[in-house]
Amino acid sequence: MSVAVIKYDRHMGRWEADARGRLEQAALALYGERGFEQTTVAEIAKRAGLTERTFFRYFTDKREVLFWGAGRLQESLVSAVVAAPDSAAPIDAVIAALEAAGAVFQEGREHSVQRQAVIDVNAELRERELIKLARLATALAGALHRRGVREPTASLAAEAGITVFRIAFERWIKDTSGRELPQHIRESFDELKTVTAGR
Amino acid sequence: MSVAVIKYDRHMGRWEADARGRLEQAALALYGERGFEQTTVAEIAKRAGLTERTFFRYFTDKREVLFWGAGRLQESLVSAVVAAPDSAAPIDAVIAALEAAGAVFQEGREHSVQRQAVIDVNAELRERELIKLARLATALAGALHRRGVREPTASLAAEAGITVFRIAFERWIKDTSGRELPQHIRESFDELKTVTAGR
Repeated sequence: MSVAVIKYDRHMGRWEADARGRLEQAALALYGERGFEQTTVAEIAKRAGLTERTFFRYFTDKREVLFWGAGRLQESLVSAVVAAPDSAAPIDAVIAALEAAGAVFQEGREHSVQRQAVIDVNAELRERELIKLARLATALAGALHRRGVREPTASLAAEAGITVFRIAFERWIKDTSGRELPQHIRESFDELKTVTAGR
Repeated sequence: MSVAVIKYDRHMGRWEADARGRLEQAALALYGERGFEQTTVAEIAKRAGLTERTFFRYFTDKREVLFWGAGRLQESLVSAVVAAPDSAAPIDAVIAALEAAGAVFQEGREHSVQRQAVIDVNAELRERELIKLARLATALAGALHRRGVREPTASLAAEAGITVFRIAFERWIKDTSGRELPQHIRESFDELKTVTAGR
């Protein structure tokens, strides 16, 4: 068990953080080995050394193991956009929020790599991921509205930000040079500026 | 029956264009009146004065009535991007292709308005539309690859183009001033340039 999980325990209670983390790790390992479709909740629970009943205390189904973090990500992005300095342009508020989230993903890179490999080979999960990202864009546009940004500026900045994030994330997952996610986000954003300028 | 359908007949055979068009019109009317979920294929066929068997000659299911045009749209976008002048920047090739497609949508504005109203109130159809647009972006990126455009430039230009199209389309559907879709696309693109420049 990692130091991160032990630290988590102080807030969540040892058992809780431990069980969720163990189930998640077991699920990702099994999805990778057998495929998402072929894995059952019973197998996940067994691999984690827990019962199915415990699984369903943390997750509604085996898909939720892959998507439960979306709500937390959305909250952190929205808070960061709302809290950005008044002087920040909409796109800069969005990109700064994504870079901050990117630093959190960077800490759990191995988890992201494993998760993405599962999603990439399953059409239904790819669709689910797409819908998740679309929701994040809508939430970011909502956060910009709270800053007084109007349409279509808010939606364009939010969607452009999510496009940058998605492409940066893909490149980061494949990257073997050790460049970190926030740097990929910055680079993809710079590239988008060049692209939209028609160069 | 409209003049457009009669003209179509010369190529497709009178019966074929007539049946597909009648089924589509009947389906859109019923989806608008009763909701997509509540409408059956039997009802669509009846409203069109045709049999269920005829319906299934044109559409695999009632959802396909709303999405069968996606393949044709994709082909026309890809052809336009591939055929753009060598000197065109990636984003300009994409936007020009979308403007040309936009002119075709403009001709059938009432159909687009009806279709969008059906999609907007149904979560599953909204997801389907999102997935359709993501596929279009992937196809556009593929067309840019054929022009020798590398990654991540190709994906960023394609995704930015689809974002512009989606937002322009939404504004066009709500527009009561008579501004046409290609103009909305041009305006949203100009706005995206401003947004990504951080202004």
